[in-house]
Amino acid sequence: MRCQRCKGDATVEVRRHHTAFCNEHFIEFFDRQVERAIEGEHMFVRGERVLVAVSGGKDSLALWDVLRRLGYDATGLYINLGIGTYSEESHQKSVAFADAQGLELLVADIPHDYGMNVEEFARATRRVSCSACGLSKRYLFNRVAVDRGFQVVATGHNLDDEAAVLFGNLLHWQTEYLARQAPVLPSTHPRLVRKVKPLYRIAEREAAAYAIIRGIDYIVDECPNSVGAKSLLYKDALNLLEQAAPGTKQSLYWGFLERGRPLVQAQDNATLRDCIHCGQPTTAEVCAFCRMTERAAERMRVRRAGDAPRAADVPDEVPAAAPSAGG
Amino acid sequence: MRCQRCKGDATVEVRRHHTAFCNEHFIEFFDRQVERAIEGEHMFVRGERVLVAVSGGKDSLALWDVLRRLGYDATGLYINLGIGTYSEESHQKSVAFADAQGLELLVADIPHDYGMNVEEFARATRRVSCSACGLSKRYLFNRVAVDRGFQVVATGHNLDDEAAVLFGNLLHWQTEYLARQAPVLPSTHPRLVRKVKPLYRIAEREAAAYAIIRGIDYIVDECPNSVGAKSLLYKDALNLLEQAAPGTKQSLYWGFLERGRPLVQAQDNATLRDCIHCGQPTTAEVCAFCRMTERAAERMRVRRAGDAPRAADVPDEVPAAAPSAGG
Repeated sequence: MRCQRCKGDATVEVRRHHTAFCNEHFIEFFDRQVERAIEGEHMFVRGERVLVAVSGGKDSLALWDVLRRLGYDATGLYINLGIGTYSEESHQKSVAFADAQGLELLVADIPHDYGMNVEEFARATRRVSCSACGLSKRYLFNRVAVDRGFQVVATGHNLDDEAAVLFGNLLHWQTEYLARQAPVLPSTHPRLVRKVKPLYRIAEREAAAYAIIRGIDYIVDECPNSVGAKSLLYKDALNLLEQAAPGTKQSLYWGFLERGRPLVQAQDNATLRDCIHCGQPTTAEVCAFCRMTERAAERMRVRRAGDAPRAADVPDEVPAAAPSAGG
Repeated sequence: MRCQRCKGDATVEVRRHHTAFCNEHFIEFFDRQVERAIEGEHMFVRGERVLVAVSGGKDSLALWDVLRRLGYDATGLYINLGIGTYSEESHQKSVAFADAQGLELLVADIPHDYGMNVEEFARATRRVSCSACGLSKRYLFNRVAVDRGFQVVATGHNLDDEAAVLFGNLLHWQTEYLARQAPVLPSTHPRLVRKVKPLYRIAEREAAAYAIIRGIDYIVDECPNSVGAKSLLYKDALNLLEQAAPGTKQSLYWGFLERGRPLVQAQDNATLRDCIHCGQPTTAEVCAFCRMTERAAERMRVRRAGDAPRAADVPDEVPAAAPSAGG
């Protein structure tokens, strides 16, 4: 196959666009798609401070890399979730990338700050791991962004991720979730920053190709807690369709943004107020993260009854999630 | 496994309901689901004349059978589409069932009435076969029902069919089609009868189980034109999910009816008028079926230029689709 641009040997096929590129022109294609996402959806402009949610995986490192290359002011934030060697390796890959590029990586450390990891949060509050983990990440990315003066948090969700999440929400017709699925979620509260997904036009394998071509060393393993996750099943089903009809995922997600989302948007009428414990925006009196961490701390105290009290078992006060600059 | 009702040996498992039944109690379950569909959705009442769209397959014969057993006034209509041995076998199975049960089967014969089959309609008008076939069936079922004084047309679409169609419409966000997908489409014009799908609560394998238990001999082969059809691909993808999470199809389709459809219904604002050729309701001046059959007849005339004119090549007049009572 030939590169669409230079007619040299193609290295990456983009079947849903009926095209292929050599390394150089694939990067050009990738950049253009990301720029179209950022500009077309008014995600942010040069000069705004962007906090990139970095996991050490291909998507988030590719995102951080492309944003810097395109001249945006992007800082990474790595959250240590405390998931054994997976977290260790993720952290190490994130640090290595930041070091090699001379970039600043902020680190928020859940086991250090809260005395337990997200799996313990999950067990103590009878959530599934992915729920406790997702809640923690959403909370901390926003909180760190607000505390550190970032205007926007960018995550590495790609087209495959978004299509799979959409598919799951459609399978269960979770209209409130549908209403909140978009490449840009604007700030609707002074302490809620804008959330953006600059890779929503990029397929998963294109993000991997970008990382490989750019020489980015990323963690290949999926999180061990994701084994059997519904989202992977949804991806399998969509991959089956994509193989038979390239462009299916794009059609599903972009069609939703254009024609489906306007229908459900009226469903999203949550009123935000301040969590009475941490001050972060929430629809309840106490935000979900504070409820989770407090309940988890309470269980931990009960279990350790008789043990010497630990700093992390602070009862009603949530420790300030002040991440240390690392990397 | 044990029957949920009598604790005897179960023969049919209904995984999405976490249950299983012996033959006798499965039929009871099936009847109850169909009654719930008919009564809950106000499809029709005893005494109304129901025209059942009969293809000779498991779904339509099971539907006809259960409606008669439940005491409804159901007459079958078989449409000969002219698809080679598939149509011949379909016809034969439909006739055999009607004969065995002493039921009246109406027959509409497309090759006889229009001088060509649905594949020739498709070729002549550059449609895919399934499009020409679907259009012909929708048109003729309605027209025969109106001409013969039926209040309602019932089709054998099951839960798997409906979930697959919904999935396809969602993958392409065809909001007009989404608005028109429902177990009941009310009559919105004096010459448009109500359309109902009494098996929408029944999974495909349950319809097959019903037909087998009831000793109904049905055509097992799929239509040869459906090979590679997208709808089969959508079914494969949904089956993958159903296997991992029984109830997925039900959740997708029922959730749509409850929470999705109300959002898209406003999209369906077509105004119907009378086709100037056949008088059937249409959104255009000439209905899609007349446009297709006229164009097909025109092409046929061009191709046969010089041949002796045939009765079926009548230029502007569509032959009256007066089906002969058969069976």
